[in-house]
Amino acid sequence: MSRLFMFEKPLGMRDTLPNLYMMKEEVRVTMANEMKRWGYQFIETPTLEYYETVGTASAILDTQLFKLLDHEGHTLVLRPDMTAPIARVAASKLLKEKLPQRLAYSANVFRAQQREGGRPAEFEQIGVECIGDPTVSADGECLGLISSALMKTGLEQFQISVGHIAFVRSFFQEILGTDERVEQLMRFLYEKNYVGYRVHVDQLSLSSIDKQRLKQFLKLRGGPEVIKEAEDLLECNAGVEALNELKTLWGIIADYQQDALIKLDLTLVSHMSYYTGIVYEVYAGNVGFPIGSGGRYDLLLEKFGKAKSATGFAIRLDHLLESLDKPFEQPPLSCIVFSLERRKEAFMLAEQQRLEGKKVVLQDINGVEDIDACSALYEDITYLVGKQKEGSR
Amino acid sequence: MSRLFMFEKPLGMRDTLPNLYMMKEEVRVTMANEMKRWGYQFIETPTLEYYETVGTASAILDTQLFKLLDHEGHTLVLRPDMTAPIARVAASKLLKEKLPQRLAYSANVFRAQQREGGRPAEFEQIGVECIGDPTVSADGECLGLISSALMKTGLEQFQISVGHIAFVRSFFQEILGTDERVEQLMRFLYEKNYVGYRVHVDQLSLSSIDKQRLKQFLKLRGGPEVIKEAEDLLECNAGVEALNELKTLWGIIADYQQDALIKLDLTLVSHMSYYTGIVYEVYAGNVGFPIGSGGRYDLLLEKFGKAKSATGFAIRLDHLLESLDKPFEQPPLSCIVFSLERRKEAFMLAEQQRLEGKKVVLQDINGVEDIDACSALYEDITYLVGKQKEGSR
Repeated sequence: MSRLFMFEKPLGMRDTLPNLYMMKEEVRVTMANEMKRWGYQFIETPTLEYYETVGTASAILDTQLFKLLDHEGHTLVLRPDMTAPIARVAASKLLKEKLPQRLAYSANVFRAQQREGGRPAEFEQIGVECIGDPTVSADGECLGLISSALMKTGLEQFQISVGHIAFVRSFFQEILGTDERVEQLMRFLYEKNYVGYRVHVDQLSLSSIDKQRLKQFLKLRGGPEVIKEAEDLLECNAGVEALNELKTLWGIIADYQQDALIKLDLTLVSHMSYYTGIVYEVYAGNVGFPIGSGGRYDLLLEKFGKAKSATGFAIRLDHLLESLDKPFEQPPLSCIVFSLERRKEAFMLAEQQRLEGKKVVLQDINGVEDIDACSALYEDITYLVGKQKEGSR
Repeated sequence: MSRLFMFEKPLGMRDTLPNLYMMKEEVRVTMANEMKRWGYQFIETPTLEYYETVGTASAILDTQLFKLLDHEGHTLVLRPDMTAPIARVAASKLLKEKLPQRLAYSANVFRAQQREGGRPAEFEQIGVECIGDPTVSADGECLGLISSALMKTGLEQFQISVGHIAFVRSFFQEILGTDERVEQLMRFLYEKNYVGYRVHVDQLSLSSIDKQRLKQFLKLRGGPEVIKEAEDLLECNAGVEALNELKTLWGIIADYQQDALIKLDLTLVSHMSYYTGIVYEVYAGNVGFPIGSGGRYDLLLEKFGKAKSATGFAIRLDHLLESLDKPFEQPPLSCIVFSLERRKEAFMLAEQQRLEGKKVVLQDINGVEDIDACSALYEDITYLVGKQKEGSR
């Protein structure tokens, strides 16, 4: 192969070396254990799915999909998220029982990058889906579980912004009338382009009162008082049901004693087009993007032939690790260097130390180019070399 | 989407549902912990690699590679094994230190299937690579680690067949003279087609003594006495070095007290074209294919610009699980069904039980279609419904 290419990886692809691997594993196991304690069961789905099923059901832009053709000419995709595959599994295999399904996953997902901008094209998500429970309690449980799991990882500073897609749609529909105009205005929210939003509103052919209402909408952020302010903005009943759900949700959060971690933000619009109700994003420390997000998606399961409500969230492990910013502590590693004559003695010593829970490298002295490097790397090093039987030197 | 496609997965792709997931996880963690105790450090590499680097360095047939094009027109592959990616990482990042690198992984690899024959196109391997240690001790360590890790999973019946690629090559070369003829004969061994091998040998233009030697070769299976039998077959010194390595290896295995698990099989030829020395396959119980394999590959690192020796193995988690054939025990899962009035009480009870280590589902009674199904699923179920404050009903 050409030297140029020798060490190269495709755009956005990363190696995870031992130290980062250990940190990732620790956080993953901590999060997963909390999900299991809450009764969620882990499943795994294939890396490749048909474009026609999971590819189109997912909410990821087509240009971000890794596509390939199979031997029969069908288009396959590397899964861009886990919600659509889990909906497929739940619809086809798990929804025979008339009980809500609590499913969890930790899996890599794939989003093709157009150019090297530091964004990974493959990253790990850990998350849950609660399928078949239409109550706000299920949404509240997801928020409770996020908080509880994140706290267990040692994350000290984080906040969850909660909105409601159905409220935004109803409110905009009441004023703007057509889906097209609604989508147009929602796009500014998705892009968090509030200046653009105001300019756009000014240019609409609306009464000055309605323009004022649309601008007032941008201020719907804060504690539970925001729900009352939102009610005051409504003229018809559109959106009231959504606001009642938020009231119920706030009560649940208070029962979980986690209201200090939650902020209402009714301008929150997620890029995931399948969300239908309560939505949220998780922010932590100084990391400039959400470390996770979630929400209700009551129409996705229909695409797999089962009209079931569902809600869930995913945490991005890379962003979470970045926000944790914990100093890494290398776990202690011992080394026993042996020569042929004392090989068996070395094996027995290693076995004994391993049984005591130590991590022990066994190293034939003839396999080391530079024995000083060995001494430099391992603090706890035992030499069993030469013929003498006594101790280490 | 069409109903036909709705639940379909690409050829050879599988879902892993909760029970199997739990079994897989338990076995993976057990194996990984043993690898860590032996001083191996886990790393992760991307799912996608350049065809020009890892794709061509791997030993998997081109027709078994999943290929796709990136935006710049480069061909990417879904990694067909982990040895080549780890060689890339070790060569580019880890071999600055003058010490052998002990690396481990658990990762899914991909092999495209031409038709539905029950073979998975994606499966998980857990394995190690010991890079930069040319001694037989490193090969012996791999064999010791396989045995130790498999025993920890509870696997009772297994055997490791050990051969030596360089012995086969040298011995065949001595008799046949050309690489082409050597490869031709080795193919019969790879296919384990011993009848075909004999017929082929009969048709070669060789002395009857040489034909007899090639047939006698097929009997080189058994305990350490096989090494002496092999020496007797040699005329020149070709192959003697390989046999000496096997002698050393047998001594190491004896020092690990694992000679009962090992059988020599000098006819063993692996399909992995990069192997250069000691090779082995692991067989267990009634499973008809190896649950794992490994060996020395001293020339692969050269392809990544570093001439370093290396040896390692991979265990297929699906085959290992099949050979374990353990009855699955569902871990206990409790359920608390609550109604609005007693929500907070339910949350507090759940939190308390979770702190005690229980797995607890919290279920709003309004989210359940069929409450009898709930009682049927959970043995340990508590109802906190209605206004009364006393106990459960």
